[in-house]
Amino acid sequence: MFKRCQKNPIIRPADVRPSAEGYQVVGAFNPGATLFNNEVILLLRVAESCVQEQGKIRIPVYRFSEGRGIPEIKEFDAHDPDVSLKDTRGVFYRGKDYLSSISHLRLARSVDGINFTVDPTPFIYPCSPVEAYGTEDARIVSIDGTFYINYTIVSTDSWCTALASTNDFKKLKKLGIIFHPENKDVSIFPQKINNKYIALHRPNNSGFGKASIWYAESPDLLHWGNHKCIARPRHTAYESMKIGSGSAPIKTDEGWLCIYHAKGDNSRYSLFGMVLDLEQPWKVVKRSTMPLFEPELEYETTGFFGNVVFTNGIVIKDGQLFMYYGSSDETTCLAVSSVEQILCSL
Amino acid sequence: MFKRCQKNPIIRPADVRPSAEGYQVVGAFNPGATLFNNEVILLLRVAESCVQEQGKIRIPVYRFSEGRGIPEIKEFDAHDPDVSLKDTRGVFYRGKDYLSSISHLRLARSVDGINFTVDPTPFIYPCSPVEAYGTEDARIVSIDGTFYINYTIVSTDSWCTALASTNDFKKLKKLGIIFHPENKDVSIFPQKINNKYIALHRPNNSGFGKASIWYAESPDLLHWGNHKCIARPRHTAYESMKIGSGSAPIKTDEGWLCIYHAKGDNSRYSLFGMVLDLEQPWKVVKRSTMPLFEPELEYETTGFFGNVVFTNGIVIKDGQLFMYYGSSDETTCLAVSSVEQILCSL
Repeated sequence: MFKRCQKNPIIRPADVRPSAEGYQVVGAFNPGATLFNNEVILLLRVAESCVQEQGKIRIPVYRFSEGRGIPEIKEFDAHDPDVSLKDTRGVFYRGKDYLSSISHLRLARSVDGINFTVDPTPFIYPCSPVEAYGTEDARIVSIDGTFYINYTIVSTDSWCTALASTNDFKKLKKLGIIFHPENKDVSIFPQKINNKYIALHRPNNSGFGKASIWYAESPDLLHWGNHKCIARPRHTAYESMKIGSGSAPIKTDEGWLCIYHAKGDNSRYSLFGMVLDLEQPWKVVKRSTMPLFEPELEYETTGFFGNVVFTNGIVIKDGQLFMYYGSSDETTCLAVSSVEQILCSL
Repeated sequence: MFKRCQKNPIIRPADVRPSAEGYQVVGAFNPGATLFNNEVILLLRVAESCVQEQGKIRIPVYRFSEGRGIPEIKEFDAHDPDVSLKDTRGVFYRGKDYLSSISHLRLARSVDGINFTVDPTPFIYPCSPVEAYGTEDARIVSIDGTFYINYTIVSTDSWCTALASTNDFKKLKKLGIIFHPENKDVSIFPQKINNKYIALHRPNNSGFGKASIWYAESPDLLHWGNHKCIARPRHTAYESMKIGSGSAPIKTDEGWLCIYHAKGDNSRYSLFGMVLDLEQPWKVVKRSTMPLFEPELEYETTGFFGNVVFTNGIVIKDGQLFMYYGSSDETTCLAVSSVEQILCSL
């Protein structure tokens, strides 16, 4: 039902200029997406580590000054007994965690939706200690002419979801944390329903149950409540670990179409569809039993973290559904379908 | 600085009538507290398990019908190979968790603040699947003549915080989930500040950092945002695991006085004090370095879960600070001090 773009991956790490000297781009993936001024805008997650040197361990860190973050390099002696490696994800040194890579968000623009020009500098990046470990996985939604961007922020206080807004993809207004830790995979609906803004979100579960898709309402996009768990992982190899929402839901005659990701056996990610009731969007009216899309081609099965397809950016362009997705936490790819085809398959 | 009541424990499990036949009360602890009609009102957490029988494992469960919960008993054959015990906390049977005890909330009333009469029936109890594993650890705050009660709800979707209101401690209005999973230890301030309702809350941390005290704002008590982490556990034996807020903050000339709990080495709980700025209550202006109160007497060091003192109910009565606290997750106790003494000690 989805047709992969022949040019996949359409954006690779090598296409992105590092944000600082001594940094290297290791991922350009999981883009938010929207249409603006006859262009497709992507907001890529750009993961950067440091160029390494013999006998040293070099780690990206941000220093904060006057409301801005300055990317720097923290260097450890590889033989220092106080340095311990935490698998491949970072370093633990004298009571503090350091990450081996940190993400920021970078704009890319295209007229045809396939060939993108990536901005030379970051659009959203860590600017205070609450974002010290990075900004990740943006979703963009247009409401009444303003673009709202939600994204995951990571810090020594764990991870949660922040909101920002822009009217022109030049100037950005950061609006603070909207879902407290631990929460990510937030999709805001493109319009109010029953006079409330609506979002799907994904709290973490460490106790009973598995991480599921929740519903919430807001009077102003900043304060959220009336939380309800509306879709839980099913007992299948595809959904055995957790599920989470993707791009903003798409309004159709049959209801709100959502494409969500599922993490299954062996940490393999695939994509499923569900439809929520138009007026009571906490009600799931349809949900696919088999994936709409799963890792099959080499760029989806191998890479920084293989066997991952993850979408948080969908646009309807010329009547077609352009699904941008991250492959293996490394590259950005495109697959095309239509709302009708997807609805028929559910 | 705190003087323990000589009658401690002032309420024991044996003082509470079980809510259903075949149930037994194993804990009457962690009360919310307020003043109402010249009485001290406590809202006890009453934990109940089932009276056991040879060769059987009997577990409390709620059946839900027409918006109410009916306590029932689920019985397993102790020799059924499908039954597996999850330490002392419950049973895992054919893909489902069952808890060995479930809590509801029960009112108790007293004129002198020491001798309490416990209501014969529950006030807040599981009424829908989102509360299936119990209602726990209430906080009561009076705002403009209405009493708002927040409490932890537990279900197959993990745990989070719900809100309810009452004007008379007879009729209760449930207002839904205000902090999504995983979140507990919510303290709502007794008045608006800068035209917003304010709360402290305690998200769970499974990633970086340890569970800490967060600040949030709301226009209406139902939708919450502007989350900030304001107090983290310190690197001491007392606070090594996590910290969480207690009863509603108390307004003083020096700021908002909060008594919070800390879980330290060997899961020992003790109580600390901090003062938040009156106008900018996300700013900690004072914080005690040593505990205000810690488990010392036998009823605090032994019991259902020994070495725990936990307070979520404080009232100012006749100029004194009456701190009601749970001992060892089993009984309700009282210790008395004054705001002045506590502030002096910080």
